[in-house]
Amino acid sequence: MTIVVKVGGSAGIDRGAVARDVAAVAAGGERVLLVHGASAATDALATTLGHPARTIVSPSGQQSRRTDRRTLEIFAMAALGVETFSYVELLRRAGAPAIGVFGALAGPRKNVRAVEAGKVVMLRDDYTGKVETVDVPLLRNMLERGSLPVLPPLALSPEGEGLNVDGDRAAAAVAVALGASALVILTNVPGVLRSVDDPTSVVATATPVEADALAGGRMKKKVMAAREALDGGVARVVIASGRVERAVARALAGDGTTIGAAAAGAR
Amino acid sequence: MTIVVKVGGSAGIDRGAVARDVAAVAAGGERVLLVHGASAATDALATTLGHPARTIVSPSGQQSRRTDRRTLEIFAMAALGVETFSYVELLRRAGAPAIGVFGALAGPRKNVRAVEAGKVVMLRDDYTGKVETVDVPLLRNMLERGSLPVLPPLALSPEGEGLNVDGDRAAAAVAVALGASALVILTNVPGVLRSVDDPTSVVATATPVEADALAGGRMKKKVMAAREALDGGVARVVIASGRVERAVARALAGDGTTIGAAAAGAR
Repeated sequence: MTIVVKVGGSAGIDRGAVARDVAAVAAGGERVLLVHGASAATDALATTLGHPARTIVSPSGQQSRRTDRRTLEIFAMAALGVETFSYVELLRRAGAPAIGVFGALAGPRKNVRAVEAGKVVMLRDDYTGKVETVDVPLLRNMLERGSLPVLPPLALSPEGEGLNVDGDRAAAAVAVALGASALVILTNVPGVLRSVDDPTSVVATATPVEADALAGGRMKKKVMAAREALDGGVARVVIASGRVERAVARALAGDGTTIGAAAAGAR
Repeated sequence: MTIVVKVGGSAGIDRGAVARDVAAVAAGGERVLLVHGASAATDALATTLGHPARTIVSPSGQQSRRTDRRTLEIFAMAALGVETFSYVELLRRAGAPAIGVFGALAGPRKNVRAVEAGKVVMLRDDYTGKVETVDVPLLRNMLERGSLPVLPPLALSPEGEGLNVDGDRAAAAVAVALGASALVILTNVPGVLRSVDDPTSVVATATPVEADALAGGRMKKKVMAAREALDGGVARVVIASGRVERAVARALAGDGTTIGAAAAGAR
């Protein structure tokens, strides 16, 4: 069984606990691949380096990171140099033969539009992209040999530019490409909440449509990733807390929100 | 034919030119693997982050980077986040299917001794290591599939700690492990010089013993790496300039210093 675990890059995630649990699941015989985020590390480094993070708002109201060339460089330092490095160290410490890989994800630059002073502008120097292809032979070979690939949320464009990609959707693309049986998305909230201020209001199961109706902000992207994974044939998608011990095992045992395939007509 | 190219991380290296040439050699049908340094990027980032680089001197007089835990973290940001990232981008731009890999090199921490105020002290919190094992199946599979692996000078200890390793000797270890036919070490001088202040005094060929007698400072480590590669069965080792166009092709055509196997008795 192949399991893709996505762990968010927000503050509050206990990397060590996640790594220990991912290693334990791998030691149990599953083929596991870890995709991580880098948001908090990027924000912190950007501030230190005097190029603070900026948020843009798309015409449809979605917020995202403004990724000019300097921000991309900082993002790469945080994603590869801090997060991939740390997870490979922590997984090795926990006994899992982790290997960090940059270059397994490819896709085009997005046409990024932002609303600025009431006007929609096209940002031509933005390095945000989306994952269209996954190097399946490489990752499959690594999994077959018992390695545990660790992937940063970075893709490469056909022109050879590094691109900031959404980690949740990248993880979904990897899960689909590898024919994974499960995608576990660990984040800093316990799942999709019926009431955003009440962490006990976790919805145990939801269709993508139901989950999307409840989700706001960053959770909407996670639900979108869940839908893409389900549509691509991944049997099981769980959005759960990454702030607890045994996060992956708990999510696979039913904690958090399991996003279930919608009836065909609802897609 | 498998060729390992090591490109130094010192200022003055034209990464773009090196990447274009490495890509051209790979496009010509060779299996190529790139190992890079990270010294200048580490020094710059360390200064910016307020943890400036420090040099230690071993009892035998060798200089090296003091790598406490914070320096290791900065080194990882520079090596993976700046250098690996840049070379993968530049190689892709030049048409080579580069993949950055962290975790293919493993080895123990070194017992680092330094002379401080006239006394020899043992530095217990130093994250400097040496490469003892190379993940040959991973790298061979990548080369067989046509990928071009890009490796930072980072190893992992059995305890799962990231370690700063000498890039030249790491490249030699990779060349030996893969049974490479050539190791090309590109640096910011044109080769082993008969007279250190005269860049036209390049020695065309030398045994390791002859080269070591001429070398000083950083060049001594390159000659040590060359000797290790030759002793491990690599037929050809060249130390040459990385500051010129077509650096790899020129080195393979005879530019720089070719280090030749010493007679068996001299080893």
